[in-house]
Parts: sequence; structure tokens; C-alpha cells
Amino acid sequence: MRPNTLRDAWKSGKKTVNGWLGIPSSVSAEAMAQGGWDSITVDCQHGPIDFQAGVACFQAIAPYASVPLARVPWLEPGIIMKMLDAGAYGIICPMVNTREEAERFVGACRYFPAGYRSFGPTRVSWYAGGDYYQHANASILTLAMIETKQALSNLDAILSVPGLDGVYVGPADLAITLGEAPVGDPTSAVTLSAIKEIVTKTKAKGLFAGIHTASAEGARDKTAMGFDFATILADTALLANAAKAAVSGFRGTTAGPAKAGGPY
Amino acid sequence: MRPNTLRDAWKSGKKTVNGWLGIPSSVSAEAMAQGGWDSITVDCQHGPIDFQAGVACFQAIAPYASVPLARVPWLEPGIIMKMLDAGAYGIICPMVNTREEAERFVGACRYFPAGYRSFGPTRVSWYAGGDYYQHANASILTLAMIETKQALSNLDAILSVPGLDGVYVGPADLAITLGEAPVGDPTSAVTLSAIKEIVTKTKAKGLFAGIHTASAEGARDKTAMGFDFATILADTALLANAAKAAVSGFRGTTAGPAKAGGPY
Amino acid sequence: MRPNTLRDAWKSGKKTVNGWLGIPSSVSAEAMAQGGWDSITVDCQHGPIDFQAGVACFQAIAPYASVPLARVPWLEPGIIMKMLDAGAYGIICPMVNTREEAERFVGACRYFPAGYRSFGPTRVSWYAGGDYYQHANASILTLAMIETKQALSNLDAILSVPGLDGVYVGPADLAITLGEAPVGDPTSAVTLSAIKEIVTKTKAKGLFAGIHTASAEGARDKTAMGFDFATILADTALLANAAKAAVSGFRGTTAGPAKAGGPY
Amino acid sequence: MRPNTLRDAWKSGKKTVNGWLGIPSSVSAEAMAQGGWDSITVDCQHGPIDFQAGVACFQAIAPYASVPLARVPWLEPGIIMKMLDAGAYGIICPMVNTREEAERFVGACRYFPAGYRSFGPTRVSWYAGGDYYQHANASILTLAMIETKQALSNLDAILSVPGLDGVYVGPADLAITLGEAPVGDPTSAVTLSAIKEIVTKTKAKGLFAGIHTASAEGARDKTAMGFDFATILADTALLANAAKAAVSGFRGTTAGPAKAGGPY
Amino acid sequence: MRPNTLRDAWKSGKKTVNGWLGIPSSVSAEAMAQGGWDSITVDCQHGPIDFQAGVACFQAIAPYASVPLARVPWLEPGIIMKMLDAGAYGIICPMVNTREEAERFVGACRYFPAGYRSFGPTRVSWYAGGDYYQHANASILTLAMIETKQALSNLDAILSVPGLDGVYVGPADLAITLGEAPVGDPTSAVTLSAIKEIVTKTKAKGLFAGIHTASAEGARDKTAMGFDFATILADTALLANAAKAAVSGFRGTTAGPAKAGGPY
Amino acid sequence: MRPNTLRDAWKSGKKTVNGWLGIPSSVSAEAMAQGGWDSITVDCQHGPIDFQAGVACFQAIAPYASVPLARVPWLEPGIIMKMLDAGAYGIICPMVNTREEAERFVGACRYFPAGYRSFGPTRVSWYAGGDYYQHANASILTLAMIETKQALSNLDAILSVPGLDGVYVGPADLAITLGEAPVGDPTSAVTLSAIKEIVTKTKAKGLFAGIHTASAEGARDKTAMGFDFATILADTALLANAAKAAVSGFRGTTAGPAKAGGPY
Repeated sequence: MRPNTLRDAWKSGKKTVNGWLGIPSSVSAEAMAQGGWDSITVDCQHGPIDFQAGVACFQAIAPYASVPLARVPWLEPGIIMKMLDAGAYGIICPMVNTREEAERFVGACRYFPAGYRSFGPTRVSWYAGGDYYQHANASILTLAMIETKQALSNLDAILSVPGLDGVYVGPADLAITLGEAPVGDPTSAVTLSAIKEIVTKTKAKGLFAGIHTASAEGARDKTAMGFDFATILADTALLANAAKAAVSGFRGTTAGPAKAGGPY
Repeated sequence: MRPNTLRDAWKSGKKTVNGWLGIPSSVSAEAMAQGGWDSITVDCQHGPIDFQAGVACFQAIAPYASVPLARVPWLEPGIIMKMLDAGAYGIICPMVNTREEAERFVGACRYFPAGYRSFGPTRVSWYAGGDYYQHANASILTLAMIETKQALSNLDAILSVPGLDGVYVGPADLAITLGEAPVGDPTSAVTLSAIKEIVTKTKAKGLFAGIHTASAEGARDKTAMGFDFATILADTALLANAAKAAVSGFRGTTAGPAKAGGPY
Repeated sequence: MRPNTLRDAWKSGKKTVNGWLGIPSSVSAEAMAQGGWDSITVDCQHGPIDFQAGVACFQAIAPYASVPLARVPWLEPGIIMKMLDAGAYGIICPMVNTREEAERFVGACRYFPAGYRSFGPTRVSWYAGGDYYQHANASILTLAMIETKQALSNLDAILSVPGLDGVYVGPADLAITLGEAPVGDPTSAVTLSAIKEIVTKTKAKGLFAGIHTASAEGARDKTAMGFDFATILADTALLANAAKAAVSGFRGTTAGPAKAGGPY
Repeated sequence: MRPNTLRDAWKSGKKTVNGWLGIPSSVSAEAMAQGGWDSITVDCQHGPIDFQAGVACFQAIAPYASVPLARVPWLEPGIIMKMLDAGAYGIICPMVNTREEAERFVGACRYFPAGYRSFGPTRVSWYAGGDYYQHANASILTLAMIETKQALSNLDAILSVPGLDGVYVGPADLAITLGEAPVGDPTSAVTLSAIKEIVTKTKAKGLFAGIHTASAEGARDKTAMGFDFATILADTALLANAAKAAVSGFRGTTAGPAKAGGPY
Repeated sequence: MRPNTLRDAWKSGKKTVNGWLGIPSSVSAEAMAQGGWDSITVDCQHGPIDFQAGVACFQAIAPYASVPLARVPWLEPGIIMKMLDAGAYGIICPMVNTREEAERFVGACRYFPAGYRSFGPTRVSWYAGGDYYQHANASILTLAMIETKQALSNLDAILSVPGLDGVYVGPADLAITLGEAPVGDPTSAVTLSAIKEIVTKTKAKGLFAGIHTASAEGARDKTAMGFDFATILADTALLANAAKAAVSGFRGTTAGPAKAGGPY
Repeated sequence: MRPNTLRDAWKSGKKTVNGWLGIPSSVSAEAMAQGGWDSITVDCQHGPIDFQAGVACFQAIAPYASVPLARVPWLEPGIIMKMLDAGAYGIICPMVNTREEAERFVGACRYFPAGYRSFGPTRVSWYAGGDYYQHANASILTLAMIETKQALSNLDAILSVPGLDGVYVGPADLAITLGEAPVGDPTSAVTLSAIKEIVTKTKAKGLFAGIHTASAEGARDKTAMGFDFATILADTALLANAAKAAVSGFRGTTAGPAKAGGPY
């Protein structure tokens, strides 16, 4: 099986950086792959992208060394298994708030007896090789999103679920449920403290920890804090920001969209 | 008819900046529109994008003030008229090297008697309004690409074609046919001299001049040189560059794609 | 935030008319927008349209004043949140039969603490503006479909769920569960009585009420009965009917599809 | 070979009605097929639809008796042959203004020695049957658009081209080149006289004649005038008109799109 | 209603063969239809295909006699009802392990009072005819996948669910949960014994039984064992195998993909 | 630049086998890539596939060693250059009948001064590497289709065009223009003699020769005759044949599609 180099990197203590795809196009996916990310995640939750476009994105990045991951819209076995069969080497599952949810999530990613994943690795066996089944349970990464106050209070129970490889922090939702405003790179003591608690407990359990950030600096800060990997924004934001920078670089003033019909 | 604010801006002496779409997705198109470009061009020539995706891009940017343009793959009436009917307020036509070619190009963009454009403004009448036909010939921009040594030598003849609104310089092809290597923002005296000649002659005729550039600085330089507008790269390049910058910002070293199968 | 003019209209007592999209194309969506509907709903339940096409439809109608809504396939948080992030200003949820279901539905549409919606307004922040998060909970419309005998019997409990904005009646399913045949504009006393009961109780609670109808007359009848808004058919039916009318207008006889292979 | 019932109908003197597809969706195509049109044309010229969507439309209408036709964007052999291989039983070619153009057009539709069509009936052999090649030259309809003053003056020469089956009148372009405004169902004496001349000469040669119209009445008028078939509007217009009628039927006032950002 | 010839065939004791679609394209679907399968299933579970592409596949095979079925990704009412509304004449539901799951599955496929399917047969009424509602409950096939040890132990309870038409065996998952390796055509005594038990009990109840196989021989074996129908591989595998056979037939050696970047 | 291993193989005397894509899907493209073809051609002429789907196919096969080629619909510079920019390492151009046509074809594939190709290697520079421009003229394969009696008579002139790399024989069209019926693997003396003449003259000039065949045996015969490479059918035919073989293997009788509506 084509190795899951992301798992290997983390095991060896390497800090990695993750790209994030929300544009439903194989062309933008391959543009993103030029960045040389350690991994690239198709975001089927908040990204305006669906399964079918996700398949094409996995194909577009297959020649590159970046490991393909997927964030699913919700803890639902159908879409989790579809993304795995399509080529995802890891699943990021949103809103895992209880131990029972973590068990259901992990189970959907593992073949029997470790879980209840159904067999049919259609495209992933092209990508991974004919021996995919033998190695899948040990290779596929299961990352539960810890992003609510409830999840925080259940963290020990969640982290003790067999087969769970790690967590992924959604700082915006975490901030909201802690009573704060959502920001990309949190600076409030309350949210930072929660983030610190998550990474500390996760690493103490010997699991992997990742987090979403809004800048390269944010990503460095978080890996310095102990996270194994960090995501920087998303293709939609990178592109919109690049467009704004180009226009304001030309005009010498702050750029932004003018709507034909309003100041929105 | 919804006014062609790009023509109006140029007439009033304003320098404008143009965005460039090669990603075949309405989502990336709307991301680009966040930049606040004066105009946005769907590039059906070198961009990996075709008519059908171009239609969706025009729809995605319609709420924004950016004027929609299209670059067609070649001087072929079918695709020129299709892009106009789909909503383009201007056409950039590659490789216009002779007066006869310029005439054929302009004719494809104008209703009789100014040209031979066929009537059927299906989507553009939704975008522009019910009085599109009455104003189209006077509003739609016809921009011939001057990008070869041959075009340079025929420049006067080309610029004298009735109905031609202006020129668009492709510096890479121009450099190649002048015996130099293609670069985004040329620095060689030979190519710069040719570019200078084009803008000077074009403005002397009272026509509009635009050019492709590789940076905001390049765009400022060229509008300072006399061009009415400049394009900065393309969405594909903006996104790939942003991805590289994010990764290298994280790693502290130069980023770039690692291929699973080679050093290409 | 771009205002939710639909909520404003209903608050002011205005009766509105809603368009319905089942054709998975941004072009047909923009054709529908020519109608000037107060709102347009992407129907991901019975319409042969999916999330990805729905995104393009939202983009296509964004320049128009019609407020974008979505009907989801089922009470499932993943697709509800995806449609909201893509631009829906309201969700119509099918088959809400109990108070508990209504609570789960409303929760999926509201950020904490009003609900459990996850944060990530990717495209909707382009459409709505940068202050979307601050206003979303108060703006987004939550409309539960009351379309079964069971829902009817639980109506008071459903209507008392905090955060529920209103109901949407599916007359065909309602008729079926009342033991009658499904029709577009019901005329039976039993079904009409149930419809009357729904609108009366809903308005008595100060909530909004809408219904699906099969004609402009049906829509007028229902708004006269007290409904705040009514949908008229769907794009698929409007187009098929228009095609039949054109052909029968030409032939002077009733038109209809001839199958090459049968009388179906 | 599945028979070309359209050719047979015309031969027997039957007047037929033609549907017109511009929406790039197989779902809208099948909705249109509910009308029971004698033929349905994928309009790759003014319709916002391209080859790939056209293939899906041909598939969607294959179970129905309506004969599939295509209008190509321009007289270009590549797209003509592609539409034929995809299933078109006839080609409508725009802007055929000279005998030489008519010859090139017909040649692109006929296998050697009648023409220069290349062999490779990929999908059409699924639709038509395994003996397609033996019957194609005699079955496929070649319809040249007569829609300019120039074409009018060359009409005799055009009509004498061997293998040309008939003409199709574009009244809007014809009106424009005759110095009048484009309208769907012309009423001016000048344009009507030109239309009358075309149908008279075409029928005198024993060829078929069709025309685009804007209403069922327009279509009846023209077939009464001698045309073998008439098209009524297009799916885009039928749908937009149906939407307007539904909304105005509800409001009791004239409907139309309100733009968020302007009065266009 | 266009008859469900598959149900009729099974009732009359005929053994049938089923095609399987995982390629998300209407063109490959129509290529598959050339095979003359008794039925064709769109596999939205393991196939890299989603709802929207599935609609196009149903349209592509509509002219053929093959009965359209769908396998859904999971027991989730939203997608089950969507596939039915799009044209499926039967649903294969994965991982039905308990009587309660079987009841939920059947209920999603049947209109009240037999179930809780929502009314809105948008495309299927075009395919099936205007009287679809009257016949749907009696025509649509409900096939529960029996593919785990747990399902085996609950088989009697599952088979006694009213409205369940039959079962479909997934031999790979069945083998895995029985402690064996997944293979296309099982040869182990343990798995074969389980398969035998399933078909025997199912037929004893008067229900239908189908199974996935990996070859024509496997399919013959299983129908000889008592199954009413068998699927042979999938389009993805048929095409990949045909490609390998063509290349090895040319080279005289075993063919297989060479990766530019590795031996995977 | 990622090397053009196809050119290298031919230079070293190796006989290669070519796959052929007509299904517009990246999934079927990757299925085909499992065959291990030396090269894979996207057929935009007779295949029901267009540019945009072709881009996705190039991406899908990029991880594999098969060299990507494209057949264009016609000798038209726009589409030739688009396919090259999208990743084609060679172009097969249909119906090259004269020396002048061969010159125009070659020119469209070569940068100045060898030709008039426009610069903008958007996706191909991702696939090939940053030094693409320096090596493209020497690497890209230009293959003119010799498939008419006229081309045969002009063969010497065509073969002497500088920059032409070789020829590709379309045996069906060749047979037709020689007065015979089109077949996949010709057996008539007349057509075989013409094929022999083409390969002999081409190899005598030191150029490459390829041909379309209908079977592995046909491909072996032709490479034994002197051809450097041969194509075997297309994905559409491989899949349809595999479907027929599976069904007839099950039934024990010849399979084929049954149409619901006729014997076509």
C-alpha cells in the first residue's frame, strides 16, 4: 500500500502543514498542490464542495506527495465511507462531542472487527494499491473535531476510544461555545486555554493533534504549542486574499468587492 | 442597458486593473470577485476553462461591479459570439496579426451593418437588460492582442480598423517572436521597446491599451507607461503562489510541490 | 448583512410568492429569476438537484432581489448547514412530525447558544457581507414542513419550539396521510380543513406560514386564507407545461410526450 | 436504423413543431420532451449550452419520439461532426450566405463520396442502431440558415447545392440585415416579404423549410405560409415567461425581475 | 405505469443478470446498457458516483429495457427517496442488520400507510407515467443487504418485515465479518454456507434474493444455487479488466498500471 | 521536463500500445489507466468528450506512466493549443490531406520560430515541470491523420513538412474514400495495400507511424507490419463489449441491448 506518509511524519515528531480545499474543481486542487503541503483536505463540511467534486480533487493531487484527507459534513457513515473509498487517507469528523459519537466515527472508518466500514475500495485501491484492505485499518487516520464546550468536558472519554488517532480543533466553534466571537487565530485567554488543554491531553495520550489557523504565523504558533499539524485558511480564502492584495497593490488602497447593487 | 463601466472609466482617463480566470468553477470566480477588480476576464485560451464553465463564472460575478470580459481561444466567430451572448462586455482576441484579421475579429463582435454578429443575446439580455441590442455595438469592447513581430509591423493597419476599441499586449508571445524568452514582466530593452511602441501608437489613435503583467508592480509600471489597464497573473497562479507562500511561511524554507513519482 | 427581505415582508403583512428550483442548472435558475419572485427555493428533496448544483443556482440568482431558500432532503444536520453556508437565507425541512424533530431542525440552523450550527459561512459571507455571523441567528428562516397526520396532532408542540419561524405545508403528503389522493391544489373538505387548521394555529402563534400550490389561483386562494407565502409548482413543471401549451397551441390538440417505445 | 421520422413527416406533407434547448441540463431537456414536440434542437449557437451538455440532452430525450437536431455555433466541421456523432439527426447551420458555404456545410454532414464527414458514430450508433452508416447520408437533415440579405441574394445558388435538404430562417438576423429591428414574429412588410420569398423558392425546389417563431400563433402562421416546420421560442424563454406569468397571476400586476443592484 | 419487468421476471421464475454503475457519466452508463442487462444499478455506496450523476445515468438507460435500480450509501431516508424520485425502480440498501433497520428501510420506500415516503415523483413520473403513485408501492423493489454476521443471526426477523421484497448479499463484507478475507466469488466453506443459508431462507419466505459476483461463472453458480439474480462486477472493474486484457493481449505479458512515481 | 517517454520508446524501436478515451469522466480515465497502456489519448473528435472533461482525464492519468495525447476534432488552432496547454504530450490531427494542412497543424503545436503556438502552458507546466517551454518544441508529438485517398496521393508532400513527427492511420475513413465499407481491422487488399504504403513511406522518412485497430490481434498485426504503435478500440467499445460478454456469459446466448421502444 502506498504509505500514509502523514502518519509516519507525525510518529517521527515532524510538524506538518495542511492545505484545505473548498473550491469544487480539480484545477484549483492541482493549483493548491503546487504549494507542497504535507497533506491536503477536501472540506465537504463548510466548503462549497460535494462528494463528486471531491473525487476529482483527489485525482488531481494524486501525483503529488501531499496526503489526501477529507472533512465530512457530519458524523454520517454514508459520506465517511464514500470519502474513504474515493481515496481519503484520513477523515476529519466535525462536532464529536461524546465518547459514543467518537466510537461511531471510528467504527465507520475501520473494517470489522475494529469497526463496521463496508468493503468496496473502488478508487482508493487504484491510488493505494491492491493490498489496501490488509493495511487500511492501520493506516487510515481518524481525527475527531473537538470544537465545543461539551467536547472539552468529555475530552478524556473521547480520547480513550480505541482506534481514534487524534483530534482536530475548530477554534471558531470552540470560541463560540465558550461565549466568545469566532476568529481565525484566537487571542483570548479563555479560548487559548481550552486549545492548550486539548493539545496537552491529546499528546499525553499519545495521539495526534491538529488545528485550523488563519495564517502561517498562526500555524507556527500552534505547532510550537504542541500540535502535530496545522491548516492554513482554505483555497477560497487564499484566493480571495491574493486577489485583494493584487488589487490593493495596484491601487495603493485597500481593495474589496464592490457590489453592483449595494454596500454588502 | 447596464453600462459598460470599463469603457467609461477608460474614457475618463482612469487606470484599471483586470482579474483573470482560468479555474473552471463559479466558486473560484466569486472568490476572485472579492478582490474588487475593475474587470474580470474568463480566459478560454490558455486557461483550462471552456465555454460552459465560463457561463457559470459570468453568473457568479454578476452581482459585483467588475465588468465581465472574455479571451477567446482563437479568432473563430462561433466562440466569440457565444461568449458575447453569455454575458461578456468585451472580447480579447489572441494573435491578431493583420488588418484583415482585425476586421474579421471586430465584425464578429458587432451587429450588422457594423459587423456580422448573429442576433440571440440569450443570457446577456438578463444581465444587461432588455435594451441590450440598441446599445451593444457601442458598448462591447473589442481588444485585439498584439503579441507577435508580425502584428507589430502591421500595427498601424490594425489600429485603423473601424470598430476596434483597443489592443491587449501578450508580453510572453511578443518576447518569443522577438527572439527572447517569455517572461511575465519583461525587462529586456527589445521587448520593452516594442511594448512602448504599441501603447504609444494605440493611444495616439485614441484607442485603449491593456497588457498582461505578473505582479501589482508590473501593473503599475505599465499603466504609468500609458496603458489604460493591466491584468495581474491569473487565478491559477495567484492560488498556487498563495499556497507556496503559506507553506514556506510555515516551514521557513522555500516551498514547492513534491511529486510522488519524480523530480519534475 | 444583506437584509432578509422575506422576513421583513412577512413581518409587515405582505403576501409573497415563491419560485421552486428542481432543474440542476444555473441557467434555468437565472431564467426563473426573470419572474421576479419574492423568494426562490432550491429543492434538494424531490427536485433532481443536489448540493453542488444548488450552489450554482444560488450564485445565479444573487443579482436579483429574490431571497434564496433551500428545501433539504431530510432532517439531517450535514446538508442543512451546507445549504446555509452556501447562501440559503432560510431552510424548509420536510417531515417535521414531532417537537423533538422541530428542535433538532431549528438547532441545526442556529449558532450556539440558540443551536448547534457549526461556524464556517464560506460563500454566504460573500453574499451576505462580513457581518453575517452577528445577524444570522436573527435572520435565517426556519420553516418546518407540516405534512402528515402525525404532525397535525403535534402541531401545538411543534409551534412552541423556540427559534422556529414558521411552517410550510406540503398538501400532497398531508392528503395522503389523511387517506386521500395527492393533488396540487386540494379541494377535499378533509384536507382543506387540515390546511386551515395549520395556518390558523401558526398565525395565532405569531409565526409565518407557507404552502405549496399548483397554480397562481391556488396561491392567491391560500394567501387569502391567511398564508404569508405560497409556492407555485416548480421549474420542471412550469417548463413541461409551457412546452405542452406551445405544442398544443400549434397543433390545436392536446399535446404530450410520445415515447418511442411505449404508451407510458 | 431508427428512422428519421421528421424527414418522413415532411415528405408526407405534415407540418411539424420544433422545441429548442438552451439550458445546459438533461433534466430541463426531459422536461421539454414532455411537450411532445416532433423534433427538439440543441442550440449550441445562441443557447448557453455546449457540446458536453448537448450529449446529455440527446440522451435525455432518446426515449421520446421527438427527433434530435442541433444548431451549431458556426460553419465549422469539428463541431458539426461532433454533434452528428453524438446523436443529432439533423444540423441547422447558421449564417450560410453563399453557395460555397452551403457546400462546405453539406459536405461536413455526409460521408464520402457525398461529403467529407469523418467516420466514428460513437453514440449515434447506440441511438440509431448498428446499420447507421448505411443510412446516414440519406437520413441526416442538412438545414442551412438563410438569415441575411446576402443569403437572400444567393438563395438560388444555395438551394441548388446537392445534398442540401432545406433551409431554416432566422427572422431576427434577417430583419437586421434588411435594416429593421429584430423581433420574434416579424410584422414588417419588408421582412415578411423576404420570408415569403425564401419559403416559396425553397418549396419550389422540393426542399424543406423551417423558421424560428415567438409563439404558437407565429408558428401556425408560418406553416400556413408554406413552411414545413416552425420552432417556438426556446426553453429559456418558455421558462422565464412561465415564471413571469405565475408571479403576475399571483400579484395581479406585471411581473419581472427586480435586481438587487439596479434597474437593469 | 411502465411495468417493473424485473419483479415480473422473478415472479415467473426467471434468473436475471444485473449491471453495476460506478462511473459518474451518462456516456459510460449508455455503454453499459449495450450489454442488455435485465437491470442496471447505480451504486452510490462504493461507486465514486453521487446523486446528480446518478440522475443522468438513469436518463441514459431509459430507452433500454434494463430496469433501473440504485444502491444507496447508507440507510438514510433522504437519499433513498431522492433515488426513487429520480427513477429507481428498486433500492438496494447496505448493512441492514436488524429488523428495526429493515423496517426503517422499507418505510422509506413506501407511501403512507405502508411507509413514510414523501410524495414528489419529479422525474420518475416522466419515466414511469402519470399513474406512478397508484402503482409505486406495489412495484418498487426493496432489497436489504445481508452482509454481516449480525444480519445472518437476525435473518428470520428481517425477512418477516412486511413490504420487504428480498435481500441482496454482499459476499465481501459477509466474509469479513465471518473472519475471512473479502473475495469476489467466495470459495471458503464458511462463507458459502452462510450464502446458502441466506438464499434458502429467503426463498422459503417467498422473497427475492440477489448477490454480487465477480464473473459470469460466479453469477451462473449463484443463480443455480437459488438466487433470482446476480450482479457481475461493476463498470469500473469491467473497463479496467478490458484495458488490461487489451494491453496484455498486445504485449503477450501480464499488463497493469505503471505509476510514474512508485510501485503501488 | 518530465520526459516524453513515448517518443523515446519509438526512437529505441519499441512497439507501443495506445488507449483511447471517449467517456467524459476522470473515473473511467483512471480505470483505463489500470491497463498499463504506453500512452492514452483523449479523443475529442469522435468521442463524446469535450475539452473540459479532457482536462480532468489528463489529471486522472497523471500519476501513471502512460503518456497523455489528444485527438482534436479538426485542424483548428484554438483547440489544438488548448489541449497542449492542458497537458497533451502529442496531438493527433484528423483529416490532414495536403501539405499546407500539415504545415498549419505542425505550426499550431510549435512555439516560434518553429510555429505559431501561443505561450501559456497553464496546466502542462504543473505536469511537465517549470522548464516546459525550453523542451516543448522538441518533445511534443505531432501526428497527422492519413485517412483519405487525397492524403494518400499527397503523402510524400505531407511527410516532408518540417516538424511533423509522424502519421496516424484511420482505417475506417481510409476504406471509405477507397470505396469500401468502414471496418475496424480491414482485411480487403485495397485498404491493406494503402495502409502498407503509408507505413512504408513514413518509416522510410524516419518518422513515426500509428494506426487505430479493433483488437489486440489487430494491433499486433499492424506493429508487425511496421507501425510504431497501435490503438485498440476505445473505452466506450471496451466497456460495451465487456458488458455484452458478461451478460452472454451468464445467459449462454448472445447478448445485446433491448430497447424498450423498438428493435433498433
